[in-house]
Amino acid sequence: MGMHEYIKSLSDLEKIYRCPGKFKFEEHSVAAHSFKVTKIAQFLGTVEEHKGNEVDWKSLYEKALNHDYSEIFIGDIKTPVKYADPDLRERLANVEESMTKHFIEEEIPEEFQAIYHNRLKEGKDETLEGKILSVADKVDLLYESFGEIQKGNPEILFTQIYQESLDTILEFKELASVNYFLKEILPDLLSGEFTNQSELETISQNILTRHNIEQTFALGE
Amino acid sequence: MGMHEYIKSLSDLEKIYRCPGKFKFEEHSVAAHSFKVTKIAQFLGTVEEHKGNEVDWKSLYEKALNHDYSEIFIGDIKTPVKYADPDLRERLANVEESMTKHFIEEEIPEEFQAIYHNRLKEGKDETLEGKILSVADKVDLLYESFGEIQKGNPEILFTQIYQESLDTILEFKELASVNYFLKEILPDLLSGEFTNQSELETISQNILTRHNIEQTFALGE
Amino acid sequence: MGMHEYIKSLSDLEKIYRCPGKFKFEEHSVAAHSFKVTKIAQFLGTVEEHKGNEVDWKSLYEKALNHDYSEIFIGDIKTPVKYADPDLRERLANVEESMTKHFIEEEIPEEFQAIYHNRLKEGKDETLEGKILSVADKVDLLYESFGEIQKGNPEILFTQIYQESLDTILEFKELASVNYFLKEILPDLLSGEFTNQSELETISQNILTRHNIEQTFALGE
Amino acid sequence: MGMHEYIKSLSDLEKIYRCPGKFKFEEHSVAAHSFKVTKIAQFLGTVEEHKGNEVDWKSLYEKALNHDYSEIFIGDIKTPVKYADPDLRERLANVEESMTKHFIEEEIPEEFQAIYHNRLKEGKDETLEGKILSVADKVDLLYESFGEIQKGNPEILFTQIYQESLDTILEFKELASVNYFLKEILPDLLSGEFTNQSELETISQNILTRHNIEQTFALGE
Amino acid sequence: MGMHEYIKSLSDLEKIYRCPGKFKFEEHSVAAHSFKVTKIAQFLGTVEEHKGNEVDWKSLYEKALNHDYSEIFIGDIKTPVKYADPDLRERLANVEESMTKHFIEEEIPEEFQAIYHNRLKEGKDETLEGKILSVADKVDLLYESFGEIQKGNPEILFTQIYQESLDTILEFKELASVNYFLKEILPDLLSGEFTNQSELETISQNILTRHNIEQTFALGE
Amino acid sequence: MGMHEYIKSLSDLEKIYRCPGKFKFEEHSVAAHSFKVTKIAQFLGTVEEHKGNEVDWKSLYEKALNHDYSEIFIGDIKTPVKYADPDLRERLANVEESMTKHFIEEEIPEEFQAIYHNRLKEGKDETLEGKILSVADKVDLLYESFGEIQKGNPEILFTQIYQESLDTILEFKELASVNYFLKEILPDLLSGEFTNQSELETISQNILTRHNIEQTFALGE
Repeated sequence: MGMHEYIKSLSDLEKIYRCPGKFKFEEHSVAAHSFKVTKIAQFLGTVEEHKGNEVDWKSLYEKALNHDYSEIFIGDIKTPVKYADPDLRERLANVEESMTKHFIEEEIPEEFQAIYHNRLKEGKDETLEGKILSVADKVDLLYESFGEIQKGNPEILFTQIYQESLDTILEFKELASVNYFLKEILPDLLSGEFTNQSELETISQNILTRHNIEQTFALGE
Repeated sequence: MGMHEYIKSLSDLEKIYRCPGKFKFEEHSVAAHSFKVTKIAQFLGTVEEHKGNEVDWKSLYEKALNHDYSEIFIGDIKTPVKYADPDLRERLANVEESMTKHFIEEEIPEEFQAIYHNRLKEGKDETLEGKILSVADKVDLLYESFGEIQKGNPEILFTQIYQESLDTILEFKELASVNYFLKEILPDLLSGEFTNQSELETISQNILTRHNIEQTFALGE
Repeated sequence: MGMHEYIKSLSDLEKIYRCPGKFKFEEHSVAAHSFKVTKIAQFLGTVEEHKGNEVDWKSLYEKALNHDYSEIFIGDIKTPVKYADPDLRERLANVEESMTKHFIEEEIPEEFQAIYHNRLKEGKDETLEGKILSVADKVDLLYESFGEIQKGNPEILFTQIYQESLDTILEFKELASVNYFLKEILPDLLSGEFTNQSELETISQNILTRHNIEQTFALGE
Repeated sequence: MGMHEYIKSLSDLEKIYRCPGKFKFEEHSVAAHSFKVTKIAQFLGTVEEHKGNEVDWKSLYEKALNHDYSEIFIGDIKTPVKYADPDLRERLANVEESMTKHFIEEEIPEEFQAIYHNRLKEGKDETLEGKILSVADKVDLLYESFGEIQKGNPEILFTQIYQESLDTILEFKELASVNYFLKEILPDLLSGEFTNQSELETISQNILTRHNIEQTFALGE
Repeated sequence: MGMHEYIKSLSDLEKIYRCPGKFKFEEHSVAAHSFKVTKIAQFLGTVEEHKGNEVDWKSLYEKALNHDYSEIFIGDIKTPVKYADPDLRERLANVEESMTKHFIEEEIPEEFQAIYHNRLKEGKDETLEGKILSVADKVDLLYESFGEIQKGNPEILFTQIYQESLDTILEFKELASVNYFLKEILPDLLSGEFTNQSELETISQNILTRHNIEQTFALGE
Repeated sequence: MGMHEYIKSLSDLEKIYRCPGKFKFEEHSVAAHSFKVTKIAQFLGTVEEHKGNEVDWKSLYEKALNHDYSEIFIGDIKTPVKYADPDLRERLANVEESMTKHFIEEEIPEEFQAIYHNRLKEGKDETLEGKILSVADKVDLLYESFGEIQKGNPEILFTQIYQESLDTILEFKELASVNYFLKEILPDLLSGEFTNQSELETISQNILTRHNIEQTFALGE
């Protein structure tokens, strides 16, 4: 028992696809998603630092890199489950957590167990790094759902995911990096011409307004 | 609300793959598996009838066809989860059941809800039809895992699944159809030449012996 | 020879795709199609029974489950072949039938051959169950072609298939289940917003009118 | 009508897979196969010319390039159909031919119809070019089936195809290019180490012996 | 060393996809592209001959068939690279050429090396056959990019490729076959209804005008 | 220009596959590889720290995460190219570097350009973190090639990659983390039963011996 099973398990994450059972034009594995979230978190952290805020990089990378590892046990089923009320979702999260704990105790050498218990626990806490992870996770989800909407995916689910992602990002609107995202990145995403553009602009503007974001975006002009 | 969401959901079952996150040479969707189990159950019922036992065909087809519908909610995650103790597995099954109930109440027209509550509940009961479903489900799983082993899949999981499937089939060894399967089908499956043949023969013989199956199979001769 | 080749052949149906050689956003295997047709037939039978008509469930399930098994020999080539006149189509069907007969004689144990000759013959006869099969087959084809049109598939073939499917369903407009489909399911299918919606509504309305369906659908309102 | 449908149809050949319904480690489209056969025919023609035989290159390229175009209508179903006796196979070929004729009359501009009737007819005639096509087609099939056997494909079908291909190639053993293939290429194919090597060597040696090929190959040494 | 490695390498071209790293609705392998280009070149040559121009068929087929073989070494990376200035593109082409040379010297039997050095060199020269290859290559690229645009691919890259392809074709507007393409094929391609049709018509008309093509196309009427 | 193109480009890395043009049982995208290398580097860094060595985590994560980003321009073509001598490989690397530079100047906002020039440059330097990256990159490559060999991939390339990877790892045998890998992980990788096990053990033992690793592994016992 020297981490072989753990390293081997990483490639299982290449074979677990996000949002299973729904038609998608592009599939995203949990491994690729984790990579993108870490890259996005890296950029968001860069913005924070650029604005003078201190970033604990070790913590940020660790949180981003590992935030979905436990999906190795039950897959990416918590997001898409429409018929799961919060209680069911909570129960699924508990099962997942128990499995992660079990896995660490069986497969990770004892001298590293404490470290991995810490690494594989939920990272979205109240620290700046926890908040950046929350935002980065939703930025990638926003891009994923945007990619489907833009290509004409008729599943309403992706519009719901787009909305829910933007909504969550805006809960962190006090962050410099979220501010940068809203001002410098979101308008570029929504520019260009694509099938459901005006609908997405309206949705986006409504969410911004609800969060009292006053700036005029002139989306898509 | 007139069954449109239900019919539409059927094609989600084409996009949910069995045993997610594991390397496989062949992928099997839940829809295709359900088809094969129903065809196999049809044959097993035919053997029972041929031996003079009465089969409630309506019940048998209904059980086989619907036995995995609720995987539409959380995917096929109960089988492969190695690190789930029985308690976790039980909790997952409960969540799944709650979601199925919720779905029926929201999407099935009221006049048909009772029928679908009945159709989508667990079908592996103590009736002959429930037993045939248990066997048919495992016969397909045996073929799926055999297909991987035969092609040289190095994941030990598939040998475990093969064993567990044969073991479960043998719990029903008093059935005429199981008897037919052991005598007339299993030897053909294990004949021919393939990479791990002798290992599979030994495994199979051991399981048969443990279940006090006395007949000599002369497997693979 | 104890049904091993037959059970093995079922997984070939997972590898035969409908409408080969045409661009599709979603692929459907013959196995998955057979599963969906059986589930749809189950629902249509439920409606018939609910309206007081007697359903021979054993026959219905048998017909639905086996209706495309013989595609294992020449694939799903009869539908998409634009350049086949009825005579060519007839000749292809004959070849297919000969192969099925040949297969049963070579691979099915003698005591079950009569049963399988019966099961694998054309099931779309003049009984209620035969009619339900005809409808269920086309309902699934309607959903498949609708799925392509809705996602923007530029192949005119799928509009032709949509039309031809609805047209065939309407040939059975005297059935209670077809009536239910037209009133309670088709409007939901055509509601929502998607690229070619108004064109599909017009096509659908024209076909309904041609079949003297008087009810106003208020499609897509 | 100016060849647009014809050019568009070429990309359908990218979506028609050879030997449908069978498990394969590698899929080959009819388009890719046609490319490879033409490249192989080019080499075989080069050998013929090198040995002093005259090659009608225009004819050779035309035959090779177009030899499977008519599979656009019914797919690649003639080869794998185990249960088709020669009569059924003949009938399938007739249907295919009728469809090709029909297509040319509907889609090819009149001034080019004669040319395309000629191009799309069976090219495996008694000319040197027709013989080279027969050989090139089987060389590619030999490589395809070899690729499956070498990777451990348990379907006996691929061994049968390997045998049948080599057998057909040897019917043309009087050709300089076949001689070259047997002496300079086949031994390289069978060298190296792979799962079923000795079996393939035996099969190959037996076929060679049956055709009175006396040379010692020292296969795989 | 008797061409085995060369024949084997052909199937690598089935696994090299054009325009890697970009979202596409349809993937095209280099093998399939080469097949289609050769078929298109065959037709363009037919038009030239029909108009009384002499075609060296052996040369034309050879050029078309082999024009992308060297992508076996570095893949299809020259076209899509947006950030490569002409100098970088030139350097990539040089690397590719060196590898081709190296390959021939190592894998092709000496007696055929001169022939293959000639076959695998750049074929787009000033001969009629070289020009037809240039056109045929771009006609296929036009169809590929059109296929993406028509299905709603939001990547602007495909519009750029469409434009660049048409532009290159028009550089050969003095050819009878290009004239035929513009008059008899392009209008059919642009007819029908699809998402970005009017934009493509405008783009096409502008390019035609820039090349002083006076004829009125009445595109899409 | 506010990083939109950069974030969008991340999902191109999900569509670039490693070792293009070669038959593989499992495909690995550059995005997934980058994720796995970062996770492996995290573990190797943990071992170093556990042994009392100081790790600059920020630097380590940055190096690992970004080490293959520039493959977005020319794909993963440097490793598999057998016919590229070191000079050609060097020239390819130069082209890649020029494209990366060009991309940063065009797409990254000015205030972050210096940071990204630094992040996207070659990270395998003489620091501990640079060395850990070199090892982590090869550990993942070792697992990838092992996965192919274990499943019976007949391409000799993967044995060459396995050897070359282990060889490179051993160049860093003075590292505590490499020591841990050799003692605690490699034996687990090589244990179990699979097709080419004894060959891989011999290869591995030979490489270890060549690097004067004295410890007895008792591989595969």
